Amino acid sequence: MKKLEEKILKEGRLIGTDILKVDGFLNHMVDVSFMDEMAEVIAEDFGDKRPTKILTVEASGIALACSAARALGYIPVVFAKKAKPNTMIDEVYEADALSFTKRTVSTITVSKNFLTKDDRVLIVDDFLAHGETGLALCHIVAQAGAVVVGYSAAIEKKYQGGSQRLRIMGIDVRSLAVIEEIKDGQIVFG
Amino acid sequence: MKKLEEKILKEGRLIGTDILKVDGFLNHMVDVSFMDEMAEVIAEDFGDKRPTKILTVEASGIALACSAARALGYIPVVFAKKAKPNTMIDEVYEADALSFTKRTVSTITVSKNFLTKDDRVLIVDDFLAHGETGLALCHIVAQAGAVVVGYSAAIEKKYQGGSQRLRIMGIDVRSLAVIEEIKDGQIVFG
Repeated sequence: MKKLEEKILKEGRLIGTDILKVDGFLNHMVDVSFMDEMAEVIAEDFGDKRPTKILTVEASGIALACSAARALGYIPVVFAKKAKPNTMIDEVYEADALSFTKRTVSTITVSKNFLTKDDRVLIVDDFLAHGETGLALCHIVAQAGAVVVGYSAAIEKKYQGGSQRLRIMGIDVRSLAVIEEIKDGQIVFG
Repeated sequence: MKKLEEKILKEGRLIGTDILKVDGFLNHMVDVSFMDEMAEVIAEDFGDKRPTKILTVEASGIALACSAARALGYIPVVFAKKAKPNTMIDEVYEADALSFTKRTVSTITVSKNFLTKDDRVLIVDDFLAHGETGLALCHIVAQAGAVVVGYSAAIEKKYQGGSQRLRIMGIDVRSLAVIEEIKDGQIVFG
């Protein structure tokens, strides 16, 4: 998505050699109008897969997931939780995900009430890097006996291998902007 | 908002004597169509205050905040973070909030890049209970030198006093559903 690439170049900031901050429109301040534009592309990419639910993970994926749900005709959004609150008394599906950025392992959970074996799940997230979160989300969908019909990331850092890891599992991964590499402080799109 | 009250009675679940779970449409699975309906009411309530930004806190406030931003003509949403990620290298405003549910104190932060003294801030959140999160958000807005033009909660538990605490500070609080009390397992709306 050309406009996302332009927005990354214009508004994104590189921290060190690898971290790309897009907190001005995606994951701290949110440009909802632009989320809706991205959502239209997601709906074009995956509408024919007839998803019944969108699965994302708190917190940065929620805004885009809600826009995508609207663009797909108001299907429900489920966001996986990173900590099990003490109000979550229901049985949960859970899977571990390593955060390379935070250097921590977190367990993400989804209540068994909200994913069923009949669901056709589109996973939506803001970033796809090493794919740890993506694999954990797929693991949760599998526990529910549901099917992952696609994986849509706003920004993919292809050189970190996440999309390849997901595709090996047969997942249809499409990202709105694909970063091939970051070289000498320059972002190279694929 | 009558329809929200009906939805709470129909889909909400009481845990023990006090905790109301609405994770089937608000804070785990999200009914985006209903978020948009609530957002229309928020826009009616606060549109004439000409907010320039919506402030919420991750994660459960984000969906409603984004719908409200759209209903108000696509103003930006800023969501306060509950943990300071190691990619957040910018200066931040921060304030402490006690969670009565989780029995923890958490520090919420907002990058100084995303709130300025010229902002007219509408705070949106899913729940208003004791008001600790609300006070922390107001504290952050004050640090930026900005003004809080209103506070919109989806569900207010009035008997826990949060709205009163905020109104004493001069904040215009309006909630879409106000629970006066929970008595003998019954929810009594105000």
